[in-house]
Amino acid sequence: MSKAIPSRNEDYSLWYNELVKKAGLAENSPVRGCMVIKPYGFAIWEKMQQTLDKMFKDTGHSNAYFPLFIPKSFLSKEADHVEGFAKECAVVTHYRLKNDEEKGGVVVDPDAKLEEELIVRPTSETVIWDSYKNWIQSYRDLPLLINQWANVVRWEMRTRLFLRTAEFLWQEGHTAHATKEEAIAETEQMLEVYATFAEEFMAVPVTKGVKTPNERFAGAVETYCIEAMMQDGKALQAGTSHFLGQNFAKAFDVKFATKEGKDEFVWGTSWGVSTRLMGALIMAHSDDDGLVLPPKLAPIQVVIVPIYRKDEELAAISEVAEKFKKELQARNVSVKFDNRDTHKPGWKFAEYELKGVPVRIAIGPKDLEKGTVEIARRDTKEKQFVAQEETVDFVTNLLEEIQQNIYNKAASFKEENTRTVDTYEEFKEVLEKDGGFIYAHWDGTSETEEKIKEETKATIRCIPLNSTSEEGTCMYSGKPSKGKVLFAKAY
Amino acid sequence: MSKAIPSRNEDYSLWYNELVKKAGLAENSPVRGCMVIKPYGFAIWEKMQQTLDKMFKDTGHSNAYFPLFIPKSFLSKEADHVEGFAKECAVVTHYRLKNDEEKGGVVVDPDAKLEEELIVRPTSETVIWDSYKNWIQSYRDLPLLINQWANVVRWEMRTRLFLRTAEFLWQEGHTAHATKEEAIAETEQMLEVYATFAEEFMAVPVTKGVKTPNERFAGAVETYCIEAMMQDGKALQAGTSHFLGQNFAKAFDVKFATKEGKDEFVWGTSWGVSTRLMGALIMAHSDDDGLVLPPKLAPIQVVIVPIYRKDEELAAISEVAEKFKKELQARNVSVKFDNRDTHKPGWKFAEYELKGVPVRIAIGPKDLEKGTVEIARRDTKEKQFVAQEETVDFVTNLLEEIQQNIYNKAASFKEENTRTVDTYEEFKEVLEKDGGFIYAHWDGTSETEEKIKEETKATIRCIPLNSTSEEGTCMYSGKPSKGKVLFAKAY
Repeated sequence: MSKAIPSRNEDYSLWYNELVKKAGLAENSPVRGCMVIKPYGFAIWEKMQQTLDKMFKDTGHSNAYFPLFIPKSFLSKEADHVEGFAKECAVVTHYRLKNDEEKGGVVVDPDAKLEEELIVRPTSETVIWDSYKNWIQSYRDLPLLINQWANVVRWEMRTRLFLRTAEFLWQEGHTAHATKEEAIAETEQMLEVYATFAEEFMAVPVTKGVKTPNERFAGAVETYCIEAMMQDGKALQAGTSHFLGQNFAKAFDVKFATKEGKDEFVWGTSWGVSTRLMGALIMAHSDDDGLVLPPKLAPIQVVIVPIYRKDEELAAISEVAEKFKKELQARNVSVKFDNRDTHKPGWKFAEYELKGVPVRIAIGPKDLEKGTVEIARRDTKEKQFVAQEETVDFVTNLLEEIQQNIYNKAASFKEENTRTVDTYEEFKEVLEKDGGFIYAHWDGTSETEEKIKEETKATIRCIPLNSTSEEGTCMYSGKPSKGKVLFAKAY
Repeated sequence: MSKAIPSRNEDYSLWYNELVKKAGLAENSPVRGCMVIKPYGFAIWEKMQQTLDKMFKDTGHSNAYFPLFIPKSFLSKEADHVEGFAKECAVVTHYRLKNDEEKGGVVVDPDAKLEEELIVRPTSETVIWDSYKNWIQSYRDLPLLINQWANVVRWEMRTRLFLRTAEFLWQEGHTAHATKEEAIAETEQMLEVYATFAEEFMAVPVTKGVKTPNERFAGAVETYCIEAMMQDGKALQAGTSHFLGQNFAKAFDVKFATKEGKDEFVWGTSWGVSTRLMGALIMAHSDDDGLVLPPKLAPIQVVIVPIYRKDEELAAISEVAEKFKKELQARNVSVKFDNRDTHKPGWKFAEYELKGVPVRIAIGPKDLEKGTVEIARRDTKEKQFVAQEETVDFVTNLLEEIQQNIYNKAASFKEENTRTVDTYEEFKEVLEKDGGFIYAHWDGTSETEEKIKEETKATIRCIPLNSTSEEGTCMYSGKPSKGKVLFAKAY
């Protein structure tokens, strides 16, 4: 087969797009900006979903489902929120079509105009807090810990598969609490959940931090985020967790009776990750031959490819292969035995490389003679012969090793491409020459932040959580700075 | 607590609505016709989803995701389909809002009108077959077996929680095959999957059949269905599986090269069940005290309620309760130990009755003395004392027994309320007096079917699959009939 994906050095952006399509992950749809998530891509997303869903439930959250549509007037209730979200969105104005008597086909029925337009949810704070008003009366109803898996729509003009699409899939957690402290603790807890998921499952190291006011979620008091580094050195925001203060409680009049019998506004949080994580996963690890998937999120962890000429050979190989398959499955390893006679082994090797299957076992007649198999790992492309009786143990360990190795590789890359600068000249030089993450002093003003963005396209990704307070001077304005912040060009 | 749900005899319809709300399953939202599925209701839906999803995967299907929006022109491509689906739907005409300078708030930006309106999917055949055109070239690409879990919108004028809502959640399977026979086999297989799910998990006995041309899915050659009986004797269509022939392949020009190298149109199927199943589950089993849930779909299968006055008593009870919890969980039984001190045992008993928790274990100081617990089953309300060392085995068996008993009860009810009539007079009398399912001869014409519907509100639910061909005369027209069909009033 011709894989025909360009190399990363050649054209990183084209490499990504072609990889997404050729590996069968997603494709553009006839609807502008909306993607089709294909079965193999969706299988990875399902693994992400299942893992995250369990983490949410283990931290006490329940799932629920709220309407797709939001009445237009709801968006205006929280002043900052409307500024940030109400603009580029899909608007439903009519509820009926009718036959077009003149031209055939169907046209919108002008008599079926909605009294109030409905917005396809770009995020659900408004419609959810409108419900919370009825669900919360007393401190006994708190905390309210709810998550929703849903599709949302934001009318993006420039779209890229997974990274930025008009419709995307996500989860959005929306919680309500009796105290500010508890809401902040929840916001931080969910950031930890996201960071753990990114590092332990996606094998993507992340930097945790808070956004500057400029980059904050519209309606939040504080936005926490995790930032990952892609192989081109650009940053990708992989998850956000917002402390909403009492903003939405005030906008939707959500009060509760305290133990002492006083009426107080509820404290809120919201947090989300989306199919954008697919983009992060793909871009963080994959190479010029295709996907590299961490075993914990690979739909197929092990593929067994028989190498044979005669049917008797296939029969003998199948016996061994099926035994491995059964034993590995008993250890919760997902295995595919690809015994299709429509494709040659070489084609299959390339196909599973493209699809990022972590471990490939090849078995031929000579292996049967010698009691061995050939095992190839996708991450390093190393191959070796292993005795059949050791194969199951070997593969089980190898999967763990690959998971760790992929993470280590990404972590080294991130470390090597993270630099600290003192002057704006140096900043521009490093950004131009090396890219990556750059720590530098900033005076804390939106003005400076925006000028740097205008001049260099780099943005403040976050004020890192682990940074120690350190007096200095802003590289741009020379004004006092209380600590270095993280700059990068970003997706 | 005051349960305050009306009895079924009093007002079946109100009983249902109040039960759905009071048990915390769902509620109406501020968006006309759209519901909010609350955490407890969603937990049941998740169990349904997980079970069905496994059944779909076990029969070779993969999940994928297609766009929420469908270009208006797509709907017109299959002539019957547009008639059935393109009318009552949500139409997106604009993609931007702007600040209203005069009145405040936001208004639709007239400059952001879409060239072609987008329809929020009422079902996805059109957008999916448009993709299949690119996915299918040769017989090697077939069968294509795909399912999607999604939200869909149909602009219903009269809505009822779960049973008929403007937005609902569902799964829609869309498959493509090389031969007619294979597509029909798939259609029938998925009907079997639905019937198995309804009977073995929901504990709802169903009648399998095919729809008359009048009731067929718009665009299908044949629609198979399962029909369930609710406690008021009305029928509820619980799932449909459609043989699409080559209709959508022709509308979207989806051809494949056969092994012999000829170009042929692909054969299709589609099949779906929705959150409507929640309505069926609730209405089939519940009683005047609340929900009755089959253990296999109950989010909480066993609740343990401590009965105590002093803290030392609670401590001693907790020790026993936690031990049961651990042992039952090891057997995959979901257990809640409700040790809240904010509510009395009597309140808790009523609450878990309302929520349909299949088994309740109460433990008090006397039980500790005697080494017993009190076990109450929700379906029959029977209570008995059981020795502590037998409790885990007893409960495990009891859950199975309850699952079976709930099914048996529904099956007896269905049998008792299924009648056969020979004349139209008798038909009307039975329908008026007893309701339920009625088998009668029908001449096979749409005309007769519609007249009976007009005059009695009963519809032909299906032509049962297991009916033996039996010559007779139509109860309405006196014309020849080839067999009895199933009539009922329906949801």
